[in-house]
Amino acid sequence: MGNKDYFQDHMPENVCFGCGKNHDGLQIKSYWEGEESVCRWDSEEKYHGWANLLNGGILATLVDCHCMGTAIAHAYRLEERDMDSKPVYRYATGTLTVKYLQPTPNDITIELRAKVIEVKGRKTVMECRVFSDGIQTAQADVVAIRVFDSSESQSENPFK
Amino acid sequence: MGNKDYFQDHMPENVCFGCGKNHDGLQIKSYWEGEESVCRWDSEEKYHGWANLLNGGILATLVDCHCMGTAIAHAYRLEERDMDSKPVYRYATGTLTVKYLQPTPNDITIELRAKVIEVKGRKTVMECRVFSDGIQTAQADVVAIRVFDSSESQSENPFK
Repeated sequence: MGNKDYFQDHMPENVCFGCGKNHDGLQIKSYWEGEESVCRWDSEEKYHGWANLLNGGILATLVDCHCMGTAIAHAYRLEERDMDSKPVYRYATGTLTVKYLQPTPNDITIELRAKVIEVKGRKTVMECRVFSDGIQTAQADVVAIRVFDSSESQSENPFK
Repeated sequence: MGNKDYFQDHMPENVCFGCGKNHDGLQIKSYWEGEESVCRWDSEEKYHGWANLLNGGILATLVDCHCMGTAIAHAYRLEERDMDSKPVYRYATGTLTVKYLQPTPNDITIELRAKVIEVKGRKTVMECRVFSDGIQTAQADVVAIRVFDSSESQSENPFK
């Protein structure tokens, strides 16, 4: 587990509540497993919706951030270059759809598995499944949009 | 502002991260303004996605919890009874779709405005708009499902 190449470790400037260097945040980590990106995450009691069940919005946050990381990593992969190389790409969410199939326990490791379905210009279309102990509890469709490309910008940092 | 009848004040057992009595949560409050339900909420720095911008997952959490409150309040309203009366109804999210139209600043009060589009049996279909300083930044479609009805249950508390 300790040697995975996490997408988020290549985004040193990222402060995001879901996936950044944010000590008050969820701090998810995503990595490739073949053509799928995987995130395994352990919740805390405060993130429950009903007692012992994960809040639906936090589940959506996991999906959103895992898919934005996936869109970024996929773009570099398509160009056969590593995530620390230039130009720098960053994506933001266009549309997020989550279908809640059944309650997700809050005290069991949550696993997300996403894959890219289609790339159309600046848009990356993904699907993401959420599992608890091997049982699928949610299904999501996500569209990410490339909103930053350092080759078109004055800066190599999307935040400056 | 102080005299509003907030939906969430009629859910004493609610521990939800988004809308419950949860000191580590968002603690949103929703109320009727005619046929629309309204929520006004101030973020904290930790909930940013990019610096100074609201995290998209937290935005989805606001939408989700505001719409679940709206579905509950609307069900009681349809039956012309107050939210402390029996039977007790509770809803959970079936599907949540959020379209991010533009970035939402994290340091300006966020306003959500939802309305019920259709009720079909146990399903309540809503749309919800998100505003920052009067500018719409997101549009959402939400389906809520009645998952608890105390008249069909051994308990009057959905959590026991």
